[in-house]
Parts: sequence; structure tokens; C-alpha cells
Amino acid sequence: MADISELKTQRETGSDFMPKFDDKGLLSAVVIDEATKEVRMLAFMDQQAIDKTIETGVAHFHSRSRGKLWMKGESSGNILKVNSILVDCDQDALVLMCEAAGPTCHTGATSCFYRKLDGGKLHALDT
Amino acid sequence: MADISELKTQRETGSDFMPKFDDKGLLSAVVIDEATKEVRMLAFMDQQAIDKTIETGVAHFHSRSRGKLWMKGESSGNILKVNSILVDCDQDALVLMCEAAGPTCHTGATSCFYRKLDGGKLHALDT
Repeated sequence: MADISELKTQRETGSDFMPKFDDKGLLSAVVIDEATKEVRMLAFMDQQAIDKTIETGVAHFHSRSRGKLWMKGESSGNILKVNSILVDCDQDALVLMCEAAGPTCHTGATSCFYRKLDGGKLHALDT
Repeated sequence: MADISELKTQRETGSDFMPKFDDKGLLSAVVIDEATKEVRMLAFMDQQAIDKTIETGVAHFHSRSRGKLWMKGESSGNILKVNSILVDCDQDALVLMCEAAGPTCHTGATSCFYRKLDGGKLHALDT
């Protein structure tokens, strides 16, 4: 069995996909709108969400509040077609480069990041 | 005291910054290079890291492995000047729009996301 530093090197330099989940079996995934480069949302994936995303080409996540798999857009129709998946150095975070069928936020905003922190207060972004 | 749905509405629509930390006191932060819109890294922040980032204008995070505050670039010099902080709908994720003093990844890569998952294997991105 590889020791910790071998495993670290393998994760950072190897070509094997070895996702590193936290103690809840999750990793963070950032959704980028490939056309505009805008960050649309951040969510969590477990192995099942990763498998389903790869299998279908449509972004799936693990809902921490509901404790289950969900397909983004399953009720709204605003799905995210995943063009590619980027993996970070220690394989505990993913970037999903997507084509969005519509707004991504459940509030109706294009992106979940619709406010900016300034002077201790939140201000709507000019979009 | 506000009930859960009032709190949710306040978080989503209000102008108060009310970061929602997980059970470990952390939230996810995505670092974007404002010049190129590239995702540079993903890390975690606690209240202390947020305070320090706002106070200094330089990105600070909470290291999950070391269990303490760290300033990105404290040893390499490759700090991240934070131009603005975006907050998502439920205030459990932040986007830091940054100017990077140099490469961001500890491996020397510009971004920690230097590989792409394709056909079950990782491939270096053409950068």
C-alpha cells in the first residue's frame, strides 16, 4: 500500500482520477458557464453524483440538506450540460465547465453569486 | 428570533452579510483571477479567515489539514490581492475576485486546476 506521501504525489502528478472526499464523502464542485466564464454556483458531489454526471453529461450533485442525489434543473428545467471536468492538484475539488439551459440560481438569478460584499454589506451586482 | 424560513429569506434577499458555515465552521471559497476569469483554486474559510481577508485585502484561508489560518502566499510570496468578494444565495460560498502575484498552485502551476478528466483519466491542460 502506498504511504501518504506517495499517495499525495500520485494524486498531484498521476493520470488516475482518485477523487479525495471529505469525511462526509463529499468534494466541492464549481460550476462555470463556459461561454461567459462566470461562476454560476458551487455545490457538493459524492461518488454517485460524479458517476451520474459522467454517465449523463448533465451536472448532478449531492444535496447536503436533503441527503440525496439531485440533478440540477430537475424541477426548473435549467440543466447544466457539462462540457468538461477539471480536477485540482489534490483532487478534492472539481470545476465543471458547462453550458447552462437557463438561469442557475433557484432565486431566478443567472448566477447564485448575485451580490457583492462591500463595506460589510451586500449589494446587488450590476448584471 | 427569526424562524428558519425567515432566516432563509433574509440570507437570500437581505443586505446583511450572514455567512453560513458548516458544522466545522467553514464555507467554500473560489478564487478567480479577475484578469483572465480563470479559476485558480478552491479553499475553505472560517470567520477568522474572512475577517483577516477583509482587513488586509489579501486572501486568507483556513487549512483543514493544519487546522489553522494561513495566508495564501505566506511562504511562496504568491499572494492573492482580493478586489472583491461575491456571496451566493444562501451565503455558504464565496467567490474572491483576485489579482495574483504569481502562480497559485503549490506545484508551480498557474491554477490548481491543471488537469482535465477525459475517458476516466486525467490529462494536462494545454496552457
